[in-house]
Amino acid sequence: MGNFPLPNLPPRAAKPRREGITMVMDKGLGPNAVSDLLSVAAPYIDFVKLGWTTALVSGVLKEKIQLYRKAGVEPYFGGTLWEAHYVRGVQADFYALLEAYDMRVVEVSDGSVEVPHELKRRWIADFRQRGYLVLSEVGSKDAAKVLPPFRWIELIQAELEAGSAWVIAEARESGTVGMYRSTGELREGLVEEIVHAIPVEKLIFEAPQRSQQAWFIRRFGSNVNLGNIAPDDILSLETMRLGLRGDTFWTFLQRE
Amino acid sequence: MGNFPLPNLPPRAAKPRREGITMVMDKGLGPNAVSDLLSVAAPYIDFVKLGWTTALVSGVLKEKIQLYRKAGVEPYFGGTLWEAHYVRGVQADFYALLEAYDMRVVEVSDGSVEVPHELKRRWIADFRQRGYLVLSEVGSKDAAKVLPPFRWIELIQAELEAGSAWVIAEARESGTVGMYRSTGELREGLVEEIVHAIPVEKLIFEAPQRSQQAWFIRRFGSNVNLGNIAPDDILSLETMRLGLRGDTFWTFLQRE
Amino acid sequence: MGNFPLPNLPPRAAKPRREGITMVMDKGLGPNAVSDLLSVAAPYIDFVKLGWTTALVSGVLKEKIQLYRKAGVEPYFGGTLWEAHYVRGVQADFYALLEAYDMRVVEVSDGSVEVPHELKRRWIADFRQRGYLVLSEVGSKDAAKVLPPFRWIELIQAELEAGSAWVIAEARESGTVGMYRSTGELREGLVEEIVHAIPVEKLIFEAPQRSQQAWFIRRFGSNVNLGNIAPDDILSLETMRLGLRGDTFWTFLQRE
Repeated sequence: MGNFPLPNLPPRAAKPRREGITMVMDKGLGPNAVSDLLSVAAPYIDFVKLGWTTALVSGVLKEKIQLYRKAGVEPYFGGTLWEAHYVRGVQADFYALLEAYDMRVVEVSDGSVEVPHELKRRWIADFRQRGYLVLSEVGSKDAAKVLPPFRWIELIQAELEAGSAWVIAEARESGTVGMYRSTGELREGLVEEIVHAIPVEKLIFEAPQRSQQAWFIRRFGSNVNLGNIAPDDILSLETMRLGLRGDTFWTFLQRE
Repeated sequence: MGNFPLPNLPPRAAKPRREGITMVMDKGLGPNAVSDLLSVAAPYIDFVKLGWTTALVSGVLKEKIQLYRKAGVEPYFGGTLWEAHYVRGVQADFYALLEAYDMRVVEVSDGSVEVPHELKRRWIADFRQRGYLVLSEVGSKDAAKVLPPFRWIELIQAELEAGSAWVIAEARESGTVGMYRSTGELREGLVEEIVHAIPVEKLIFEAPQRSQQAWFIRRFGSNVNLGNIAPDDILSLETMRLGLRGDTFWTFLQRE
Repeated sequence: MGNFPLPNLPPRAAKPRREGITMVMDKGLGPNAVSDLLSVAAPYIDFVKLGWTTALVSGVLKEKIQLYRKAGVEPYFGGTLWEAHYVRGVQADFYALLEAYDMRVVEVSDGSVEVPHELKRRWIADFRQRGYLVLSEVGSKDAAKVLPPFRWIELIQAELEAGSAWVIAEARESGTVGMYRSTGELREGLVEEIVHAIPVEKLIFEAPQRSQQAWFIRRFGSNVNLGNIAPDDILSLETMRLGLRGDTFWTFLQRE
């Protein structure tokens, strides 16, 4: 998966991946930029989130979706689009939308709306039953709403049981909510509590900032699942996964 | 103006807009990126500022200008280009430039030079008389120069009277001067004083940061005029105007 | 080198430049973006660093390299790629790589590995003897490793004597290590000490942030050598070199 050989690289999962997943945040790329991203980095990208509700207002959406599919990258609607349908009571329109765009992946989130968790679990089970691969998201987009670790764990476990393939830990595009303080600093204790109870390969950590990505790779290895990666940062992330950027240069090498 | 219907969205002005204007900052996009921007978001963009003096040094400038025009987006030279001509005493060259590039919009600013305001008002009136749509800008690019609210109001009123179609409140590309503190935090009291005296639809607020955009939309609604938006953020802004991103999700919905 | 005349601009070196060099950081541009960058700004770019080890994982690498060459811009592998070969004991593979990609410029760095400086000087001399133009880099990527000024000077002098055409002062992509504090603030005293001992035209200052670029231009003039410039910022930098952006507007003009 490289242009030339280099020995002693850590093993890196290949597609279709069950771990080592990279999810990219597309907040409005045009076709030339999508084509650039794919020609440079398609093998490293598993999912592309069409950020929040941008799919509603974006031009050339179908063309973009086709470009991603043809390159073996799975696009999906950001969870906020589902929430926007739910809160308006037009869930049926959302189901039709998934068919119209031939989507295979659904993100179920409650980052902007508050719903009883039982209802969210029913959504997950329902989408699963309709044949979609479900990614569900835990954590609020509101910096003021901080969940205690035991609650993160309960929610994640329940969502996995309901049918989520992976549970995404929320951080927004900025990396400043959910698992993070408003400065972007990781709540490390929270993460340690979560992975003590949940298999790390069932989690996708949103980690838009480089220092956040480096922390997860140093802690959980090359094949940690990471999300909300900016398109410009995909090659950077891949080099960090391989211990080939300053931040992780010594992570997988034995210092003699 | 969307790919699929969604009920209960706030009303959004359509082109040609008198309010709800979005002005993009282009600081050196190439033709592929311009084409991307337009194919994804042309309906949401009213003006494109060719940032400060980048028009002087940019390759393929005429091609870019044509791409914008063909898509119904009006490009114009950043006000610093006018200031650079003025300070050198070659104003006539600038008039020739406007004709050579068939410009229809002129930005008149004094962000880098100090001029008696009477002279600035004469510039505005003169460009207006030559048939241009005039955008004038108030506020210094120098963070140390803080105008009191009454002075903002005097200047804005005088410039509107002199012939400005809209007055732009300065923030730079970074959003850290003029209406903002060096941290990017808005001087809310200043803004409230200004809109108490001036109709908000005659103002374009430079608001490059997401939190700044969200504040203006929450405060003044979907159709507040915003400027210095980064090309990558146009779809994000449009979703915020429609109450479809976390920051403004509940702004236009009735919580029951 | 501009689209239209403007008098009283500071003199700007033309290619091939011995000073006034701009080195761009490419961390994974696709072909459309490379083409954009070149059509808009090729005359202002001397070198493109294929950041750290991204050349290993990037798709369409040869096509990109050809695009740069055809436009008169010299691409080279980031120094970390050399370090990654060295630390694995496969230096011979790196030499083969330089030939396979027809590289003419080599960056020799020790930002991630620690080596006796005598060895680094031998690397420089060896690459020089093999016919490459050598850029060597001083300063650690580790924010905790702060060199005193006299040590910077010793290292730079020794590397120039060993055969470096220019010595690069390290800052990373972020501008927060080496010559900079973790806030991005420049260690001005350090820079003054260095240029007291070393001709400034033999140095390339990594300066990814706008305020950093502005400082160097105000202090050392239009033709200071600057590196790690983001592709999006090339036109901005060129206008700052010419005194045509707010930050340097009065630097080259006589205030009357």
